[in-house]
Amino acid sequence: MCALKFQLLKEDAHSKARLGRIETSHGVIETPIFMPVGTRGAVKTLTNNQLFDVKAQIILGNTYHLMLRPGMEIMEKAGGLHQFMNWPKPILTDSGGFQVFSLSSLNKVTDKGVFFQSHIDGSRYFLGPEESMSIQKIIGADIVMAFDECSSYPAEKDQILKAMNRTCKWGKVCRNYELKPYQSLFGITQGGMFDDLRIQSTKDLVAMDFDGYAIGGLSVGEPAEMMNAMIDVSEPYLPKQKPRYLMGVGTPRNIIEAVMRGIDMFDCVLPTRNARNGTAFTWSGKISIKAGKYADDFTPLDANLNCYTSQFSKAYLRHLLNVDEVTGLTLVTMQSLAFYLDFMDKIREAIQKDTLGEFYQRICEIYPT
Amino acid sequence: MCALKFQLLKEDAHSKARLGRIETSHGVIETPIFMPVGTRGAVKTLTNNQLFDVKAQIILGNTYHLMLRPGMEIMEKAGGLHQFMNWPKPILTDSGGFQVFSLSSLNKVTDKGVFFQSHIDGSRYFLGPEESMSIQKIIGADIVMAFDECSSYPAEKDQILKAMNRTCKWGKVCRNYELKPYQSLFGITQGGMFDDLRIQSTKDLVAMDFDGYAIGGLSVGEPAEMMNAMIDVSEPYLPKQKPRYLMGVGTPRNIIEAVMRGIDMFDCVLPTRNARNGTAFTWSGKISIKAGKYADDFTPLDANLNCYTSQFSKAYLRHLLNVDEVTGLTLVTMQSLAFYLDFMDKIREAIQKDTLGEFYQRICEIYPT
Repeated sequence: MCALKFQLLKEDAHSKARLGRIETSHGVIETPIFMPVGTRGAVKTLTNNQLFDVKAQIILGNTYHLMLRPGMEIMEKAGGLHQFMNWPKPILTDSGGFQVFSLSSLNKVTDKGVFFQSHIDGSRYFLGPEESMSIQKIIGADIVMAFDECSSYPAEKDQILKAMNRTCKWGKVCRNYELKPYQSLFGITQGGMFDDLRIQSTKDLVAMDFDGYAIGGLSVGEPAEMMNAMIDVSEPYLPKQKPRYLMGVGTPRNIIEAVMRGIDMFDCVLPTRNARNGTAFTWSGKISIKAGKYADDFTPLDANLNCYTSQFSKAYLRHLLNVDEVTGLTLVTMQSLAFYLDFMDKIREAIQKDTLGEFYQRICEIYPT
Repeated sequence: MCALKFQLLKEDAHSKARLGRIETSHGVIETPIFMPVGTRGAVKTLTNNQLFDVKAQIILGNTYHLMLRPGMEIMEKAGGLHQFMNWPKPILTDSGGFQVFSLSSLNKVTDKGVFFQSHIDGSRYFLGPEESMSIQKIIGADIVMAFDECSSYPAEKDQILKAMNRTCKWGKVCRNYELKPYQSLFGITQGGMFDDLRIQSTKDLVAMDFDGYAIGGLSVGEPAEMMNAMIDVSEPYLPKQKPRYLMGVGTPRNIIEAVMRGIDMFDCVLPTRNARNGTAFTWSGKISIKAGKYADDFTPLDANLNCYTSQFSKAYLRHLLNVDEVTGLTLVTMQSLAFYLDFMDKIREAIQKDTLGEFYQRICEIYPT
């Protein structure tokens, strides 16, 4: 068991898109990749078999949620998250920072970390870079994220600078923490929507030589153009031989535009959350299944997608959602994840075949935003 | 496509238990059998693949629920429930009577049928024997149930008599209704907890020569001994060459006791509903998974059951239920249905091997009630 190996297989001639391969002790990840979000030890409404079925290569676990429940005592006894949920493939865990700042009641943020209260029962916790590493070591993810302070949008430059410097300081602590031999550590860059801060943060983190880099603090409410601009500003400072991860992104359009800017990895609750609200991602665009026009539409949600859900009609799925049958949530979630993973597969194929530009045009038609 | 064929393969030497085989146009059912309840076109929390996985041979659909939603216009356009839910194996539908009497706001019961209001939106419906047959013809179940009036428990004898006579009258209307060629029709006996009425009702129905017979109006709150007594009273009047179905039963103990009294088919929401409340049926008895003692119990729910859920620990399942992850409901539902179907398999094996008496003793220890 050793840390990840990243191979850069091909660079696109017409964009900064990259075809790659990440080897971990729990299996191979082909990049660009989308990672379904398994917040609390399960991708919502799905079993592992269904995740295999939609061709998930790696899933994400949330440090914040798992530290609250089941808690690290049980996680440690289980032998880590792979064993706990019996998931044999790679896992990435976030640092907990994003949820601490967005979900919990913050009591105090210091240079050491964050004092907060659980959003569930108000119980008190402290999370700093060492605590985050210690928890992620117990969870045992293949890819561990450094503890960062994610600023909100919009925010004043001096606030962003402060958070960025803290992120840098915390990054060093994380980098010096001894994880399990098979675990890899990614640094997270910050810097808000300021070019100079983005560049500085990227340089700071890259100097610490992480196994990969995430661009953090994006997809927090800013326009897509601004997000893309921040990727463009950061990318030249990221080493080519390390994987790059854009956290919390996004729509198919967001993803392909980031791929063309040199990003390799993505995660987002969008496909799974939208599915549970009755909206599916398909090769014909987003479909709101509960719409009355589908009541007697016996065609599949997506005739162009080879997935388990394609055997069921829109009329059937609409009925299940209308009568609140959980089975409907499961089937639409499977469809949306199968679409996202097929979409990433098509991106990889397009990079391989030098047709990413045409593929991008097609996606812009299907997903205008 | 033709109606069902029932083969009586073996009669137990020491009890009235029977080993049988029902051939339908959608496949074979080995009896004694348990039928998972797929109320509104799905067994709650499961996909068809998961039903295959737990070895379901036949599922039940509820006429009352399906007539309200999606409604028969959509069901007819879909080509029936098999097509609508893409379920290739046999389906049995109840008559709608039980739910009309238990769930809806009854406006008026006449000799023609029941005027009622939907429990969902108060809209008005009429359901009589012809309507029930017409709906079940559209749903297209392999096994259709005659429309009956199910009395509550306790009830006065004159009320039971009235309901029994209506059931008889309605049975004749159903018997004369032309279903699809592949559909079979079961009569339902009533008679409350009165020996003479049970006998009379059974004789009345058997005289009409149905494809099978259900004992209705039991498992409505009476003690198990009384239910068993009513089966004992009815059984001698049921033809040996037709399948017998005890509706809405029950616990493993109830089921094996009814099998030993000559019953072939069962359905009940108990395993699926209990699973969603966190209680699993296992070969070690019922397990309330949310109990604190399972927080760090990394053994499977049931080491003696070969099912998908057996790969997950009690600690993991407990965690999923505690954090309200739907995946937990799915996994526990799979476990409980897999147990019920394995239990029926073991009953069939015991009848085959003449060891049903011993097996019954074992079940009494595991399931005292």
